[in-house]
Amino acid sequence: MTSSTRVTKTREPQQDRSRATQQRLLETAVECLAELGWAATSVGLVAERAGVSRGAAQHHFPTREALFMAAVDHMGEQRGQELRGQAAELPDGPDRTLAVLELISGFYIGPLFRAALQVWVTASSDEALRAKVIPLEARFGREVHAATVELLGLDESVEGVRETVMATLDLVRGLALADILTDDSRRRTQVLRQWASVLDQTLEMGV
Amino acid sequence: MTSSTRVTKTREPQQDRSRATQQRLLETAVECLAELGWAATSVGLVAERAGVSRGAAQHHFPTREALFMAAVDHMGEQRGQELRGQAAELPDGPDRTLAVLELISGFYIGPLFRAALQVWVTASSDEALRAKVIPLEARFGREVHAATVELLGLDESVEGVRETVMATLDLVRGLALADILTDDSRRRTQVLRQWASVLDQTLEMGV
Repeated sequence: MTSSTRVTKTREPQQDRSRATQQRLLETAVECLAELGWAATSVGLVAERAGVSRGAAQHHFPTREALFMAAVDHMGEQRGQELRGQAAELPDGPDRTLAVLELISGFYIGPLFRAALQVWVTASSDEALRAKVIPLEARFGREVHAATVELLGLDESVEGVRETVMATLDLVRGLALADILTDDSRRRTQVLRQWASVLDQTLEMGV
Repeated sequence: MTSSTRVTKTREPQQDRSRATQQRLLETAVECLAELGWAATSVGLVAERAGVSRGAAQHHFPTREALFMAAVDHMGEQRGQELRGQAAELPDGPDRTLAVLELISGFYIGPLFRAALQVWVTASSDEALRAKVIPLEARFGREVHAATVELLGLDESVEGVRETVMATLDLVRGLALADILTDDSRRRTQVLRQWASVLDQTLEMGV
């Protein structure tokens, strides 16, 4: 065993611990934002809930904004990866469109969307935060759009297809918004079922 | 002139003034909420901006919640009436669907939606407020749904029509959400144009 190996060996667990701490802080930040809102969530509170010392939390994320932006970014990435994993299990054939819509819609339902909504709404009245959130949002938007096109097996060079995909994503974000005050899952299922049937008909006809 | 007439005459201007004060407070509250957010908007600040004394403001609206709820409710009513007024000017014929969509979508774009979003998001992490906001939201949702059905001249007893209208309203709320950080009007026009064409085709075919 060379000394360099030993150095690596002692450093790795430390880096792992640091990464695990960050991960826990980010997950807890999303939970707190979704549950308590921006104003009620401080770095200190997130640290406490995550079982991390306030000092360690502030070392990783000096400000509330830095923590929340990183949290939404990181959790979005992770949910995006989960989405790609689930995509492999989608059925082919006539049930595929609805299954894709439910998968994409599910991406926007739940704590991550609520946390992101807190960030968007805060950013809408805070110029400096807004400037940071816009590119993050644009990147997410592009990724989900590309995933939807791919999962539905669409050709965006066909007229109207790109706009239909955009409409579908605005629809699922509208559905996510409708879910923040009450459990809207029953109505959402009806809407997605109808939209799947409309999509199948119109994409086939090339509307 | 009887004495009762005279009493009415002196009282009316007072009532008018009180109503005008309330109206100014409600309008200013929506502006402040949209521009500054829930946390930064106090009854005192709204009073100051509206040119109303703090005491008079607190007489009408003892709490921030009371003011904000009344503001979103009242302004929603007023925008709803404007919408019904504009409906008379909608074209008939092939351009009608897009014109209706633009009207309904316009209802959700701008300061009122931003203010309402502040209320929804705050309510999502505040049980007591949530209980008050839910019936308000449900009533608005029903009214806009009924207006959309009427303006598009639809028959909801036909299978899928009700769900298509719901999808349309989720879409326009999603579009409104996409507008809170950047001016999304160009993309929105494309999406609404495509949605109008899809609606025309599918409603005709009875999908």
